Amino acid sequence: MSKPIKKLAVIGSTGSIGQQVLDIVRDFPDKFRIIGLAGGKNIDLLSEQINQFHPKIVYSAHKFSLPVNTKFSSMEDVATHPEVNMVVIATSGKIGLTPTLAAIKSGKKIALANKEVLVMAGEIIMKEAKLRQAQIMPIDSEHSAIYQCLHGETCEVAQLILTASGGPFYHHSPSKLTKVTVDEALEHPTWKMGKKVTIDSATLMNKGLEAIEASWLFSIPLSKIEIVIHPQSIIHSLVEFVDGSMKAQLSIPDMRFAIQYALSYPERLANYSLPRMNLTRLNSLTFETINYATFPCLQLALDAGKKGGTYPAVLCAADEIAVELFLEQHIGFPQIAEIIDKTISLHQSIANPNLDEILTADKWARDTALNSVAR
Amino acid sequence: MSKPIKKLAVIGSTGSIGQQVLDIVRDFPDKFRIIGLAGGKNIDLLSEQINQFHPKIVYSAHKFSLPVNTKFSSMEDVATHPEVNMVVIATSGKIGLTPTLAAIKSGKKIALANKEVLVMAGEIIMKEAKLRQAQIMPIDSEHSAIYQCLHGETCEVAQLILTASGGPFYHHSPSKLTKVTVDEALEHPTWKMGKKVTIDSATLMNKGLEAIEASWLFSIPLSKIEIVIHPQSIIHSLVEFVDGSMKAQLSIPDMRFAIQYALSYPERLANYSLPRMNLTRLNSLTFETINYATFPCLQLALDAGKKGGTYPAVLCAADEIAVELFLEQHIGFPQIAEIIDKTISLHQSIANPNLDEILTADKWARDTALNSVAR
Repeated sequence: MSKPIKKLAVIGSTGSIGQQVLDIVRDFPDKFRIIGLAGGKNIDLLSEQINQFHPKIVYSAHKFSLPVNTKFSSMEDVATHPEVNMVVIATSGKIGLTPTLAAIKSGKKIALANKEVLVMAGEIIMKEAKLRQAQIMPIDSEHSAIYQCLHGETCEVAQLILTASGGPFYHHSPSKLTKVTVDEALEHPTWKMGKKVTIDSATLMNKGLEAIEASWLFSIPLSKIEIVIHPQSIIHSLVEFVDGSMKAQLSIPDMRFAIQYALSYPERLANYSLPRMNLTRLNSLTFETINYATFPCLQLALDAGKKGGTYPAVLCAADEIAVELFLEQHIGFPQIAEIIDKTISLHQSIANPNLDEILTADKWARDTALNSVAR
Repeated sequence: MSKPIKKLAVIGSTGSIGQQVLDIVRDFPDKFRIIGLAGGKNIDLLSEQINQFHPKIVYSAHKFSLPVNTKFSSMEDVATHPEVNMVVIATSGKIGLTPTLAAIKSGKKIALANKEVLVMAGEIIMKEAKLRQAQIMPIDSEHSAIYQCLHGETCEVAQLILTASGGPFYHHSPSKLTKVTVDEALEHPTWKMGKKVTIDSATLMNKGLEAIEASWLFSIPLSKIEIVIHPQSIIHSLVEFVDGSMKAQLSIPDMRFAIQYALSYPERLANYSLPRMNLTRLNSLTFETINYATFPCLQLALDAGKKGGTYPAVLCAADEIAVELFLEQHIGFPQIAEIIDKTISLHQSIANPNLDEILTADKWARDTALNSVAR
């Protein structure tokens, strides 16, 4: 008996992840159907996607003419449309938070590419997901790797080991880091990703956010999450069990592996449009320890994660602002960490915050981060 | 509630694997109890093991005085003792075949370190195991790795990838191989093992036997089993699923990981007498293609496996004789493959052989292999 078609809403369909989600949907027309799309500023692409996938419901910041069976609505309506089984949160930054929560509350499965959702509001999201028994599938190579390694295992975990490529500047000296350009920072050595996450990879902030996300997703304290540099991005992460045995998941670095796994789970689909890996054609696989001193964003993130409260939300907000300022060439690369550090140090955290308190902290942090530069 | 103690019989307790099995039992006195031991020629060690583990039943080729609550019996009686839950087949060569079959028929779980059992009689063993729903846990780092990677997975496998260290001579030229000594062949670069399997590793015969064994254990055709050289022996094997994603199991090369997993499954036990792995202290992990021309034993094994019938039994028997002749310095290293090749080429195989036919082919192959040298 063939499985019923999965009906999807994609929040952030015009971004890097969103486009690759639609690549997978295109590869399996008998497995997935698009019910809803929510796009950003790229109206031309959103319009093209609508013409190709015929969604019933669409969110766009700017309106334009739609086919007869498609209508505009709010982002929450897209995420909670009654026909939708699974909502793909393919945005980055805090914009993904509200639709994720709305989707969970209306009983949808979630495929989550947006790290900030769990970093900002992990406790709220996971509590709600548990209450509704909502499945949250990670779309991130590291978390997908861990999910796959833990699949079917009931034994105790000694630690999760997140691998990090180290980004384009891993062997730069601190003085060389002061001179890197935006274009250099956007040249990631192994992964093709959106701008925000590419800069976060260069600062290693991305790995800190991933550690916090992994902690929530897999109910593991941050103290049991290790990070190692693995420049080749072939081993996407590992799990060490209490017996000292490790399991790892490997593939050519291509986001579509994690995306397809999240969409098709518990099935795996043969997809020959994805690159196959021949181990004997790989370069050596290597691992290095983290240089925390040269890349302070990672420690800032881990500290914020350990302190909890509204600190992680402030971390995310300050990082979003700082990365934007760097991309617009208002600040240099080392100032990203400086702005985040300064913002966090000024923050008065609230313990066990509710959603409003998180969003207030987010707003405060954005203003504070911006002001710290204006001064 | 604590799990009941597993009651074990160890066939081949004085060999390399047998001793390490008892190491694990010693580490967990509240998890495992020894009911039966079967030893080889090393009476001193067997006697010591009896004094330490107080088995109820013992097999030994040579009799000696026993404690009051221990008695001698046949190897089959040890393997089928009513109190035993799990029989560890820690022998190498055909000697493991009869006790394995007897244990399965009397409803025991099997922990199988003896490759030849499945290579010689895979069809018979697996049919019987299926009939009795007997669990067969592999004790071999490669098969344990695959077992762990497949655990909980219900999705289709694209291929199993067995890793091979390549042994001590992997980069030797054919002419250099003619001059290697027994001592050099016994110096395995990464694994501490018994003599037979160490020589089989140097010829790569071991990897061929493992491929046939994996084919039976995991119901996968040999055409879907790939072999790659991985000199560091850290990644013990991999599974590639139909979606192109691979899972791997890793640890420091130490047989006790696979042994403990087989004994404790489905649990994993924290055991700090086993060496922990720090990825950042490893050398680079590398993979190379197999040089079939210089190591003909591997192709001989794969061909015998593909042809089936009594060929795999003949392969094992001829290999046992040839390795013995090499260890006794009657023949040089390249003659191991020559003897096996000659024996196989003279064999008239029987399709779907029963146990008697397999043992007859084994006997014939031993005589033929010996005669091929005597001439």
